[in-house]
Amino acid sequence: MSSLDIKPYKKGCDYSYTLGAFPTIELLKTKPEIVRNVYVHSTFTNREVIDELCGENNIRVTVADKLISKLSDKENVFVIGVFDTYSEELNPDSSHVMLVNPSNMGNAGTIIRTCIAFGIKDLAIISPGIDVFNPKCVRASMGALFRIRHHYYASFEEYERSVTRRDCFSFMLTGRKQQTVDECEKPDVFTLIFGNEATGLPPQYEDYSKSIIIPQSEEVDSLNLTIAVGVGVYNFVHKL
Amino acid sequence: MSSLDIKPYKKGCDYSYTLGAFPTIELLKTKPEIVRNVYVHSTFTNREVIDELCGENNIRVTVADKLISKLSDKENVFVIGVFDTYSEELNPDSSHVMLVNPSNMGNAGTIIRTCIAFGIKDLAIISPGIDVFNPKCVRASMGALFRIRHHYYASFEEYERSVTRRDCFSFMLTGRKQQTVDECEKPDVFTLIFGNEATGLPPQYEDYSKSIIIPQSEEVDSLNLTIAVGVGVYNFVHKL
Repeated sequence: MSSLDIKPYKKGCDYSYTLGAFPTIELLKTKPEIVRNVYVHSTFTNREVIDELCGENNIRVTVADKLISKLSDKENVFVIGVFDTYSEELNPDSSHVMLVNPSNMGNAGTIIRTCIAFGIKDLAIISPGIDVFNPKCVRASMGALFRIRHHYYASFEEYERSVTRRDCFSFMLTGRKQQTVDECEKPDVFTLIFGNEATGLPPQYEDYSKSIIIPQSEEVDSLNLTIAVGVGVYNFVHKL
Repeated sequence: MSSLDIKPYKKGCDYSYTLGAFPTIELLKTKPEIVRNVYVHSTFTNREVIDELCGENNIRVTVADKLISKLSDKENVFVIGVFDTYSEELNPDSSHVMLVNPSNMGNAGTIIRTCIAFGIKDLAIISPGIDVFNPKCVRASMGALFRIRHHYYASFEEYERSVTRRDCFSFMLTGRKQQTVDECEKPDVFTLIFGNEATGLPPQYEDYSKSIIIPQSEEVDSLNLTIAVGVGVYNFVHKL
């Protein structure tokens, strides 16, 4: 693929790209088979790791200053990895995190990185929601996107049909029965559900799941979504 | 102050501004005495709360479409509150969060909101670090900035001299003695210390404090700073 043919990413495109050396190295380490090309800036000096990983996998490394400035709106991008977008299924038997209608790409990337950090390897997204292949999300994930399985579902019912029976827990401030993570029972396999940044979870999630509350001061309206996921997942996973 | 005199914020300016109705309402509720003026867009319809709070405090509300488009780079800002920047001291006897050289304004705002949510009301910042009065930080805090006491210190030593004797805990991945939050002892008064987004904490913080680690997978380089603060503060505060 010539660098001239690469356009800024749009949803549904059959390729996307990593912005920056760190997520590109993560891409090359975890999913070399989907990489089309790697492009570096002529001023990028620290090429050893990139060159070695590309060499092992017969991936071409091309100097392409114009392409990098076209695709990146930040000055500190010196490496771009172009990869095939892909679809995949979740592991139906493992514990999952679910995002319902996430709307911020940076948040979604941070959440993916957080899930991997705390041992959750499967992410369900209820549509509509942001596109995880958007380079902003890939970048915010620091490349952890390539370590998580993700799948979009049209509804909770569709999700439920495709996975093994499990207990689901919705993080919400308005549940009829409010339990903290410490108070609820932890099953072997679970799904932790988080709502949209602005609107939270639709009320029917109370019927689909048990509701969990993260204790917080009345001096704030709510936690930032990424913080709720971080605190919720960490404490649930580490619960005895 | 005429809307014509108001310029985009620069560090050190004696005024700054809230972008959006929510942080402006927080400003009016918590620190009405520092508000110079409130400006609204002519298409903003939901003015009751703003008008009432401003009326109670003799603050003028002016329609100023040009000013709002000049100060805001997002389309969904309809209200701006101009306020005097201020300096304040921490409560020397309470528990604190410390950020050492924070570099991202959005992260700092999210951290301030998280501290307030989890009951920490004092934030120490070791310089150099971002300016919490920058409108990006004010906005990311959702106005929680006005509920926290913050103070900048040139060094840890300067901080230590100005507060009551306490145990300090540094969140780092490289401590000589690695304890988790569960393993350490919780004193009545404490300071929780977090480093820079990219570089973490300087090694001397091991001498100043006990080091704490948040268990995380080797599949990620580190947690996002805001997630580390969220998980660290929540678990430390709720520790029995």
